[in-house]
Amino acid sequence: MSTYDVHRNPLSPTPRTTLTRAKERGVTDRAALDAVLDAGLVCHLGVLLGGSPVVLPTIYGRVGDTVYLHGSTGSGNLRAAIDSEISLTVTHVDGLVYARSAMHFSMNYRCAVIRGKAVLVTDEAERDNALRVIVEHSAPGAWDRVRSPSRKEMAATMVLALDLTEASVKVRSGGPSDDEGDIAAGGVWAGVLPLRQVWGEPIPADNLEPGIDLPVDVAVRVTPSALPER
Amino acid sequence: MSTYDVHRNPLSPTPRTTLTRAKERGVTDRAALDAVLDAGLVCHLGVLLGGSPVVLPTIYGRVGDTVYLHGSTGSGNLRAAIDSEISLTVTHVDGLVYARSAMHFSMNYRCAVIRGKAVLVTDEAERDNALRVIVEHSAPGAWDRVRSPSRKEMAATMVLALDLTEASVKVRSGGPSDDEGDIAAGGVWAGVLPLRQVWGEPIPADNLEPGIDLPVDVAVRVTPSALPER
Repeated sequence: MSTYDVHRNPLSPTPRTTLTRAKERGVTDRAALDAVLDAGLVCHLGVLLGGSPVVLPTIYGRVGDTVYLHGSTGSGNLRAAIDSEISLTVTHVDGLVYARSAMHFSMNYRCAVIRGKAVLVTDEAERDNALRVIVEHSAPGAWDRVRSPSRKEMAATMVLALDLTEASVKVRSGGPSDDEGDIAAGGVWAGVLPLRQVWGEPIPADNLEPGIDLPVDVAVRVTPSALPER
Repeated sequence: MSTYDVHRNPLSPTPRTTLTRAKERGVTDRAALDAVLDAGLVCHLGVLLGGSPVVLPTIYGRVGDTVYLHGSTGSGNLRAAIDSEISLTVTHVDGLVYARSAMHFSMNYRCAVIRGKAVLVTDEAERDNALRVIVEHSAPGAWDRVRSPSRKEMAATMVLALDLTEASVKVRSGGPSDDEGDIAAGGVWAGVLPLRQVWGEPIPADNLEPGIDLPVDVAVRVTPSALPER
């Protein structure tokens, strides 16, 4: 089992110019943070609504030190996030840890928690790019072959940015952490049942006209062996 | 696509004695709520910490109208939840919806959001049962074959209860909701890429002694065909 927490400090303009041991660790942890975020499909967003927290799943995308969220301009939950402290969490459950005693049952997981103030993005170029990044995050390779957002669609869309300054990463992996006495007593199976997400067979839309091939960006998710070697 | 929200009212002592159309719908939705909760492995818990929300994944279990959470008595996050308004969300991502335009990309999902005040459970019988329920929720069939919690372990464990009174269920399923113009224009693949979670091959603990068979409750998750017919 390995568990670690990271609380990042704001990046300085030249973060690598004054590397210390702590900062080297920071770089490693930053890679872990990016990896957890980049591997996720949805995040769980915590916002204050009427003084109490509400947690909702939503899609997102990342550019460098910024996570982007989007939604309808009519979304009360997203409006509540503007200029407010929010929490954005991405969790991967990697397995179930079967122990020899009830109290040591656990999950293997990777989890990133970001806290900070969500900011409304108003620059049109940044908004355009954020939407591309959000779509490409969950559907890489799809953006360039579908219709881009219209002005009307963009006008009805809110884009929020959250800085990765305050983030923590927590990972549990490996087998059960049983008590010595339970291990010595023996007789109980212990181990890990791994869990993973898999894509199924693509289901074409009912109204898809004949003769449209499955795009490569979709096909490669189902059959990675179809990828050209590189 | 089907989307529906439910805001349940407190159950009356005899909820079925005065059925109305609205209540019938309530019963249906209650079944949907239970199904989403029961199928989940982790929930995302939103608590107020220092005035701002924090979202953390945790395991849980359900008994009737109550969801139970547990953790170390030293857990600041769980302590912050006691007698406070919290949000508990369980999300299943069932697929990625590829549309003909960027703005109609979506996810198929099932999501339950519960809001309410978390209550510290102090009754020892209820605490014992809650722990059993939490372990059995993620590892059905395991409780009876592993060591039960000791008094010392129980003393170090906090159990919280959350009532399901205020809950909503939201489900999206089916294909993309493209604009007529994009459908008419044609030429772009659209459909759903299903996503599901699958268990992998069990990994025995490094220190597992020889001769311990894989328990039936673990084996059936990997090879459901090994289940006796019934």
